[in-house]
Amino acid sequence: MEIFYSSEASGSTVFLGQEESAHCVKVLRHRTGDEITVVDGLGTMMRCRLIDDSPKGASAEVLEKVPNWGGHPYSLTMAVCPTKNNDRFEWFVEKATEVGVDEIVPVIGERSERRVFKTERSRKIALSAMKQSLKARLPIVAEPVAVKDFISSPVAERSRSAEHSSPVAERSRSAADIKLICYCFEGETLRRSIEDVLSEAAEGANITIMIGPEGDFSPEEARLAVENGYIPVHLGPSRLRTETAAVTAATAVYLHYIK
Amino acid sequence: MEIFYSSEASGSTVFLGQEESAHCVKVLRHRTGDEITVVDGLGTMMRCRLIDDSPKGASAEVLEKVPNWGGHPYSLTMAVCPTKNNDRFEWFVEKATEVGVDEIVPVIGERSERRVFKTERSRKIALSAMKQSLKARLPIVAEPVAVKDFISSPVAERSRSAEHSSPVAERSRSAADIKLICYCFEGETLRRSIEDVLSEAAEGANITIMIGPEGDFSPEEARLAVENGYIPVHLGPSRLRTETAAVTAATAVYLHYIK
Repeated sequence: MEIFYSSEASGSTVFLGQEESAHCVKVLRHRTGDEITVVDGLGTMMRCRLIDDSPKGASAEVLEKVPNWGGHPYSLTMAVCPTKNNDRFEWFVEKATEVGVDEIVPVIGERSERRVFKTERSRKIALSAMKQSLKARLPIVAEPVAVKDFISSPVAERSRSAEHSSPVAERSRSAADIKLICYCFEGETLRRSIEDVLSEAAEGANITIMIGPEGDFSPEEARLAVENGYIPVHLGPSRLRTETAAVTAATAVYLHYIK
Repeated sequence: MEIFYSSEASGSTVFLGQEESAHCVKVLRHRTGDEITVVDGLGTMMRCRLIDDSPKGASAEVLEKVPNWGGHPYSLTMAVCPTKNNDRFEWFVEKATEVGVDEIVPVIGERSERRVFKTERSRKIALSAMKQSLKARLPIVAEPVAVKDFISSPVAERSRSAEHSSPVAERSRSAADIKLICYCFEGETLRRSIEDVLSEAAEGANITIMIGPEGDFSPEEARLAVENGYIPVHLGPSRLRTETAAVTAATAVYLHYIK
């Protein structure tokens, strides 16, 4: 099943961008009159009929709309420190998108070795993973932000953006926000397991999970997070790489909701 | 923390192979008298003192042994169809090793596009992931086998090899084997969720999970598996790539035991 992405619509017509048009018309040789499946990146899948097969700017007529297509019953923001090796972070973006995530925020910690991050590649990967995994909602890949600034930014602000892309969260204003910080912080003895904390997560919860860099969060960052309502959690006995920890945490959320 | 691997020991002396010796002596410049950490790949970590710093064949004296180091309270065999793109399978090998797996069996299904598989690269990746994630047990990467042959082979035979590398399984002869097959098999309505089935998994259980190729298992393979005691399970609503499904399943097992 081939999915096309369009962020442009007018009335009952959707317009494919240049890349999508070329893929649809040149590569897959679709012609005017063909039925294609288009997603809007905001949660809606549209069964369409191609009305203009121009390889530079194709357009299609919407025949049927299916809201919250391939959606999940929670809103998940993953704030993850970029890895030294870019591929590893991009792999996380792909896997988190397949499993189900609403927003990915690259956060730069005091101990981060990588302090610059290019969002464009990750956005492309999220787009292709969304289409490949038959979802209609495109995870937001935010611009990088310092760990402390992310912690201090009001959740409301962030969850608004998540709600924008998640009708589920929209339904769940009442559901409490759950904010988790995964870290190894030596000497830390008060961490609960992520499974234990997630067992309390209700349908439609807005969940935020922070994952530190290879060198972990600084004690200062950890303290600030706890002060701001983040629950310190561990991911079990295995020592996981940053991107593995991030995918494991996103998977724990996904699995909790299919129980 | 740097871990070295040695499969050769005599009395209280362990011998490092050529690669490990070069890494220890040439790269990390360890010299006779230095303390190093060595794992035997069978579950035991050894604190050692280097007694011969030859870059081609170093050896060390064992000062202390720690059994079941970085181990997990279950025995997991992942039988996964190789992906069209080798990197994706190798990525699964790395992540499953980090999280915790005992045996990885590349299985070739009737619908597999990749019908040949080279085990050496995956074994190297498992070795480096074992060291990186501070574990002492090296997952077995088996030679490829046809799906039907894997299903028909007596579990006892397979679990023996797992037990060989897993003292936990050794302790748990009483624990029932749990065999799962993840597939999408169109029209299939009897699948339980993996979370539901794992909720019954006891400490030390011998768990086997089969993951099909991009084209899924054939109905014939699925039928044979069910006849042989495999429980058909699904991994939730998301459509996951083969390697993502494999890591998600291994992670579900890992998370079940840290609850």
